[in-house]
Amino acid sequence: MPILAIKMNVYLFNMNTMITKTSITLETAKKMAELAIIGINISITILDCSGNEVLFMKADHAPLISIETSRKKAKLAIGFGIPTGDSWYQFIKDDPILSKGASDLPGFILLGGGSPILYNGNLVGAIGISGGHYKQDEKCVEAALVVVNS
Amino acid sequence: MPILAIKMNVYLFNMNTMITKTSITLETAKKMAELAIIGINISITILDCSGNEVLFMKADHAPLISIETSRKKAKLAIGFGIPTGDSWYQFIKDDPILSKGASDLPGFILLGGGSPILYNGNLVGAIGISGGHYKQDEKCVEAALVVVNS
Amino acid sequence: MPILAIKMNVYLFNMNTMITKTSITLETAKKMAELAIIGINISITILDCSGNEVLFMKADHAPLISIETSRKKAKLAIGFGIPTGDSWYQFIKDDPILSKGASDLPGFILLGGGSPILYNGNLVGAIGISGGHYKQDEKCVEAALVVVNS
Amino acid sequence: MPILAIKMNVYLFNMNTMITKTSITLETAKKMAELAIIGINISITILDCSGNEVLFMKADHAPLISIETSRKKAKLAIGFGIPTGDSWYQFIKDDPILSKGASDLPGFILLGGGSPILYNGNLVGAIGISGGHYKQDEKCVEAALVVVNS
Repeated sequence: MPILAIKMNVYLFNMNTMITKTSITLETAKKMAELAIIGINISITILDCSGNEVLFMKADHAPLISIETSRKKAKLAIGFGIPTGDSWYQFIKDDPILSKGASDLPGFILLGGGSPILYNGNLVGAIGISGGHYKQDEKCVEAALVVVNS
Repeated sequence: MPILAIKMNVYLFNMNTMITKTSITLETAKKMAELAIIGINISITILDCSGNEVLFMKADHAPLISIETSRKKAKLAIGFGIPTGDSWYQFIKDDPILSKGASDLPGFILLGGGSPILYNGNLVGAIGISGGHYKQDEKCVEAALVVVNS
Repeated sequence: MPILAIKMNVYLFNMNTMITKTSITLETAKKMAELAIIGINISITILDCSGNEVLFMKADHAPLISIETSRKKAKLAIGFGIPTGDSWYQFIKDDPILSKGASDLPGFILLGGGSPILYNGNLVGAIGISGGHYKQDEKCVEAALVVVNS
Repeated sequence: MPILAIKMNVYLFNMNTMITKTSITLETAKKMAELAIIGINISITILDCSGNEVLFMKADHAPLISIETSRKKAKLAIGFGIPTGDSWYQFIKDDPILSKGASDLPGFILLGGGSPILYNGNLVGAIGISGGHYKQDEKCVEAALVVVNS
């Protein structure tokens, strides 16, 4: 096996060769989860800006399906940077290919209760909530987002 | 390796820190499976109150797709605590987002033949049956539920 | 469609047909997670007595692999009811088939940092921690278990 | 798009063009499951000669990991037609590639408790049992196999 000559090109290293990402902390996620619990038995998933899970909590009497559903909502929200539910519905409803084909996207879920977390205009994470009617889940998300909107 | 400082807070432990769940036994599941076989070649899946499988049986001439279909029905029934079929249809049909988006729920199946098992008002398990027309599957479920309704 | 003859056997229903399980609450899981953070950047997974996820948290600087590793440890701990690490090692080391075959168990992980949560002798949940050396992870688990041992 | 000419070869159809498979019935599987329960808290999976599931039962206090482990054992047993455990160990232990590589087979599990079901020399199904020490699981399998050996 030949000796491999390591390329000696010198790369000038400047700020353009790297990107910096801003992401929520676990501390922020915990505050959001605390605020999200407003009387509905829910599961909450919070992802960082890279889609990795930061926090998950399931209320004692939340329905079992809420565990995975909260994850799907959070993943779609971080995946596109727009909330699940009506934003998506308005986006797809009048285009036959989008309307029929959106559900083919990996992990797509139309139901409301997933939202990007924005901070100074940056996508810093996402939250997904499931457990009640999707309109209730949306209210819980709204309550949680006060942390970053205040 | 850093020195670990274990927090010495003592938590008073009381009954609020635990919850109690009631679930069907294998014995109950076996009785239900026996009653469900009323002349249709079916697969039967029975889950406990937490969604873990307790019993599965496939009749000799049941179609192959019934194996996984019975599981999907049982899982959705334990996941939300309501039967598959008409209950779901009535719930989603008049809301465009629910109507379009329900099928995005993990493991969703609209077809009848899945049902929660309720005992004294508690969700103690779920049953999923597949093999015939969904209306036949529903009859089999009804026959099986005699165990907990009697 | 054939006429379905529902069996009319009436089953006398008594308490032997149900079992009762005790499980940790989200509140207990949150206290455990708080106690587990003792200076190591870890991920924490806490499962209820049936293996369903109750809580997950990832510290800001925990390594990415800790996310799934904490889950594996918790699942194995709830799956068998014994801690990962030395308990397993002692159990398998002198039997050639166990020693070689334990890793074939679904989701097996030998590394310490997973533990059942016991309360009055019942398996009420499990915790899995990952992020440091497995001996550090074990210390974090030990710190968390103070909740149920006090 | 060109018109496709369907090949007009006539295939003489005789008995050699089809095979007949002999498989256990659900009735046999139920008898085996009944016999397998000899005081250990186990999960039992029984597959037909084609690897499709016929029966699954989980005893009330069987460990959670036994659910999937019983499936793995049954699948490997039907997959190769030889029991898991010592038969496999003897087969692989003195060949370095087999010894190291057997665990790469899809769904491989070395632990005893899986067995083909043979009837008149034919592989008519498989059983997998998990819940105790693998030697206990093997005893349960042995008890179940009395159905086809008697």
